[in-house]
Amino acid sequence: MTEASTNTPFHAWWEERGSANRSEVTRIPFSALDGWGFERQGGNLTHASGKFFAVEGLRIESDDGRQAHQPIIHQPEIGLLGILVKTFDGVPHCLMQAKMEPGNLNTLQLSPTVQATRSNYLRVHGGSRPRYLEHFWGTGRGRAPVDVLQSEQGAWFWHKHNRNMIVQVDGDIPVHEDHRWVPLPELLGLLHMDNLVNMDARTILGCLPAAMLPARTRTDAFGEALGQSYETGDGAQEALGWLLDVKGRGRWNTRLIPLDETHGWTRQDEEIAADDGSGFRVIAVRVRSLHREVPEWTQPLLAPRGDGRAVFLVRRAGDTLHLLVQARYEPGLLDHVELAPTARTPAIAADEEVPFLKDVLSADADRIHFDTVLSEEGGRFHHALTRYQVIEMPSDFSPDLRSEVGMNYRWMTVRQLMELVRHGHYLNIEARSLLACLHSLR
Amino acid sequence: MTEASTNTPFHAWWEERGSANRSEVTRIPFSALDGWGFERQGGNLTHASGKFFAVEGLRIESDDGRQAHQPIIHQPEIGLLGILVKTFDGVPHCLMQAKMEPGNLNTLQLSPTVQATRSNYLRVHGGSRPRYLEHFWGTGRGRAPVDVLQSEQGAWFWHKHNRNMIVQVDGDIPVHEDHRWVPLPELLGLLHMDNLVNMDARTILGCLPAAMLPARTRTDAFGEALGQSYETGDGAQEALGWLLDVKGRGRWNTRLIPLDETHGWTRQDEEIAADDGSGFRVIAVRVRSLHREVPEWTQPLLAPRGDGRAVFLVRRAGDTLHLLVQARYEPGLLDHVELAPTARTPAIAADEEVPFLKDVLSADADRIHFDTVLSEEGGRFHHALTRYQVIEMPSDFSPDLRSEVGMNYRWMTVRQLMELVRHGHYLNIEARSLLACLHSLR
Repeated sequence: MTEASTNTPFHAWWEERGSANRSEVTRIPFSALDGWGFERQGGNLTHASGKFFAVEGLRIESDDGRQAHQPIIHQPEIGLLGILVKTFDGVPHCLMQAKMEPGNLNTLQLSPTVQATRSNYLRVHGGSRPRYLEHFWGTGRGRAPVDVLQSEQGAWFWHKHNRNMIVQVDGDIPVHEDHRWVPLPELLGLLHMDNLVNMDARTILGCLPAAMLPARTRTDAFGEALGQSYETGDGAQEALGWLLDVKGRGRWNTRLIPLDETHGWTRQDEEIAADDGSGFRVIAVRVRSLHREVPEWTQPLLAPRGDGRAVFLVRRAGDTLHLLVQARYEPGLLDHVELAPTARTPAIAADEEVPFLKDVLSADADRIHFDTVLSEEGGRFHHALTRYQVIEMPSDFSPDLRSEVGMNYRWMTVRQLMELVRHGHYLNIEARSLLACLHSLR
Repeated sequence: MTEASTNTPFHAWWEERGSANRSEVTRIPFSALDGWGFERQGGNLTHASGKFFAVEGLRIESDDGRQAHQPIIHQPEIGLLGILVKTFDGVPHCLMQAKMEPGNLNTLQLSPTVQATRSNYLRVHGGSRPRYLEHFWGTGRGRAPVDVLQSEQGAWFWHKHNRNMIVQVDGDIPVHEDHRWVPLPELLGLLHMDNLVNMDARTILGCLPAAMLPARTRTDAFGEALGQSYETGDGAQEALGWLLDVKGRGRWNTRLIPLDETHGWTRQDEEIAADDGSGFRVIAVRVRSLHREVPEWTQPLLAPRGDGRAVFLVRRAGDTLHLLVQARYEPGLLDHVELAPTARTPAIAADEEVPFLKDVLSADADRIHFDTVLSEEGGRFHHALTRYQVIEMPSDFSPDLRSEVGMNYRWMTVRQLMELVRHGHYLNIEARSLLACLHSLR
């Protein structure tokens, strides 16, 4: 059996990878994009090859006929995010990758074994095959305890979903210098480091089945209640009925439109921005890397204005921790409404206006059980940071869930969320990230 | 306890309802539509109120950049299809409705307890509330062993899905003259009558959980193998992996476009039709009914050219029946690819060109275990008839499932399909209809 790791501690390896993967990302005007351009008819921002993604327009029509417009990223194909897992000395280890993405604040983040586009795994354009792909695609695939299609940000992506996989292997696996076997308990612990574990890794970890979770180690009152939340709550059938109630009340009229027709947005040389300064901008960058297969490239990125926040409010009911889950509409979600954290503020939102959030912004430190700034997908988003939090409310915190606002919220256990995350279209990307974070608190 | 039924036999009641629900449906030119019209910009066919549905255009772009266009029905909201179930003398009875729909070949079909639009159940326009709705929506809802969002025809509907519900009641329920308690075993038997059980009833019956199915009665070799198929096949996880493989190979670039821009289709006074005479037409009708809340109305309908076919090929492997399931792309499906019957030919398709179908068109009668012509949704489709069949192949029938075509097919058991139908986005509408038909063969 191959050794799981050298004797180098994780942080030494990480630092060394950082030195070896230097790269430079610079803002450029759209006119300096190579292969990318605004289509003559409609003005969508596309690549000449038809590959990669496009920036198009989105029209959202509400029940009363009012319209809202915005740019949105459209990539009508399914990517593959996979973590290879092998057990060494009884402990599952994940083969993680130190990977550069142009939108990352800090260049490298800890990424899944494989992040592959459809072109990568089908090799339709004869390009190079990502390392370790053979374990996830084709006849050589191993046993997959996680294999599920999951959504991504419905505010920024049109109908984007990726295949989330965990594949278990027994045989010898050569470890490339950018890869490293990380024990699963240590990997979950790394979620507490700002901007380290990337979004693609988090969404996969959020799909972990109960059988793969490390044994509980925490024995304080919060830990006991959290542990009980993994055992309690039979069936999520009623929660699905509630989700359908929320979906049923809405009318979901969203459609792609030409980028030129997004009213309220203006294209300048270096950015496409909302006239009212809200939301995000579309920008362009040049990437110089000493390490990627393509040594230099240019691409558009979506740059949120300021940082966001994603919070699960939790409370102890009896001996069990419950999470206040929101059924949340996002215009780009394929199925319109998915289960989300209690509060999710996009960049620069007025946190005070978000239900339940105002009261906890100044919560005591001992009620904040998780609080880490983590990055969203660096291949598409520029410096998109989200502050992920798990905040405990007093046991008598009891919002009115029959009010017009409250109807979109429901108390659920971790076990119920884990049952639902086995299928797509149920938990949104931030809920899955926070589920991974909860796994780190056991 | 209320009697389940009067002493009138089902067919006498059905005949009597037919006499009481006379109505007349006539073709009219689009200009005679009341409240409906072609929008000045883009030409979509819509209702002035913004309610009901719209006929818009759809553009399907394939991997090599080729485009196909067609009209498609767009209704961005979720309808509710519900059957109320109550047990009399130990036998579950379904409260079924004799319901007229304008597109029905034969006016009345046997329909669920409730078919409600969003306007119906929210009463946003103050309209009349459908009978029995209170059992399915709001605080009075009963226990729901089935409550799931399911897709409808992806060739004719854009992203249409409806909420399928079965609700169990114990108390007294007044029975309206158009409604009748039908014992579940009898209802499944009625699936063998041409054009009697409507599509909305079939999709709900296709979602029946194992615990609600009547006990098996059939003891011949086919019946035994079918029965075993309800007990065999642990987990559908591998089948979901295969479904994701099929989804992953495609690029799914479909979008709504203005109806005016559907190349290859021409609008005349009385119909919108493909220039090559294929597929379907969009027509308009006037409906005069003595029975509906609105005594007379006009509306567009989608009229397929000729009848379709939906077939499950099955074979015995050992003592268990297996079904050859297709992972099938349809442009209007929200998630692009769902599990479908082995063969599904739209109207006027050349059956000979459909994989596996050519050889069975002249199958011996003793191999055809189910063969009934059933109607698709009469509220949207005009005389849309599908011949549903279950045809048994010899045990040595063993198509190559590694070939380019074969990769889209997989042998599955009834149990595996029943596990998947608990969630949306997995089984398409014809597969669910045929699952209900299989329940009738036990």
